[in-house]
Amino acid sequence: MPPDVILPYKKDHPASYAPGAFATIELMRARPRLLRKVYIRPSFAEKDALLAECARLQIPALCGEEAFRRVRQKENEYVIGVFDKYVDELSPGKPHVVLVSPMDMGNLGTVVRTMAGLNITNLAVISTAADIFHPKTVRASMGALFQINCALFDTFEEYRMAFPAHACYPFMLGGDALPHVLETEHKPLFALVFGNEARGLPPEFADIGTPVRIPQSALVDSLNLSIAAGIGAYAFAEKFELI
Amino acid sequence: MPPDVILPYKKDHPASYAPGAFATIELMRARPRLLRKVYIRPSFAEKDALLAECARLQIPALCGEEAFRRVRQKENEYVIGVFDKYVDELSPGKPHVVLVSPMDMGNLGTVVRTMAGLNITNLAVISTAADIFHPKTVRASMGALFQINCALFDTFEEYRMAFPAHACYPFMLGGDALPHVLETEHKPLFALVFGNEARGLPPEFADIGTPVRIPQSALVDSLNLSIAAGIGAYAFAEKFELI
Repeated sequence: MPPDVILPYKKDHPASYAPGAFATIELMRARPRLLRKVYIRPSFAEKDALLAECARLQIPALCGEEAFRRVRQKENEYVIGVFDKYVDELSPGKPHVVLVSPMDMGNLGTVVRTMAGLNITNLAVISTAADIFHPKTVRASMGALFQINCALFDTFEEYRMAFPAHACYPFMLGGDALPHVLETEHKPLFALVFGNEARGLPPEFADIGTPVRIPQSALVDSLNLSIAAGIGAYAFAEKFELI
Repeated sequence: MPPDVILPYKKDHPASYAPGAFATIELMRARPRLLRKVYIRPSFAEKDALLAECARLQIPALCGEEAFRRVRQKENEYVIGVFDKYVDELSPGKPHVVLVSPMDMGNLGTVVRTMAGLNITNLAVISTAADIFHPKTVRASMGALFQINCALFDTFEEYRMAFPAHACYPFMLGGDALPHVLETEHKPLFALVFGNEARGLPPEFADIGTPVRIPQSALVDSLNLSIAAGIGAYAFAEKFELI
């Protein structure tokens, strides 16, 4: 029998892991049935409470140093929760955020955390894109990934066919003539669409709905993707009193 | 004579470097006199144009592979601009952002980029804090660091003594009773004060001015610091038509 160790993450493997106690506890709260096993370092301060909670939820747990030896990480984690990857469906009656080819796992996770914080809990990710289940994405989301629905689509058209009722708001770079995000008409069943970190959305996305812009100075080329998504999502969440 | 190589970054060294062509070109535009030397890899596609611009600005430039060999980096940079660290003074008549003990260089750089994008160009950083001149901070700012004034203070009191006229808005975590950032009275000479990533602002900061909150769901503990600062700064920038 192979030793019971946490294997390095692989994109094509059916399992991933939540790095750290915070993300693992979020996972235990939100989707306990997905957890294969919780690994705990003996030096973790709250190990007894966590072991008890695993026992209560009937989640296998292992306290020991040995299991961690194959996981290379920048930060030392005291807890790791190995979970089965899953497929979510988006709610057709709820607002969406759509990320078109986000390439940075930190940005992707930060957008997820922001969405959860603003009660916009349905995210479409259009390929090619950063891996939503990568431990780095999970870490950047602070475990909020498990609180929202996230679905992958090969193309934007595939997403649009599945959710034709949503009013799309593509956030375009440049284009001073476009309506300001706060000044446009806001429809309650919205899909906020953001492009790639380096290029933004291609120009043809202006035709998918009501193109909007976030005003910005000439001092920068653009805002960071997660900041633009945060400002845009906040404007809509505020308008419809989602928070 | 020692070989002309780029030395690994050290916090106590009087020089730092801008990693990458984008950040280096921002530095050349904003503060050309600070540049000691621009290093260019022979494989950089636009090396001739960059060498010509360095010559025009009388900035020493070196095109060669050898200079890069001591810089360990995750990403391969084609261009590095070595610059003298500097001390800025904040403008007493302009709005400020104040970060109290930000610990993550990515967050710090992202806040700087957002501020430049929103035309809020004066940043106070209260120690202990992530290193504003570290190449990782410069990279996360996309070179926007060179577009704004940034000053360090040992304590918040020291900042407050230097800028007594600013109306302080501490962004507090929790506290549903606090005024919503959009509903409070906004004064044009403002200082938006944000706390540390892990802890937010200590409770006593509620007394330094008008405490505000960004409403959020119960799904997350808090928003990421750079997102909270982005949403807060956008609300004020929008109100006073800074952008």
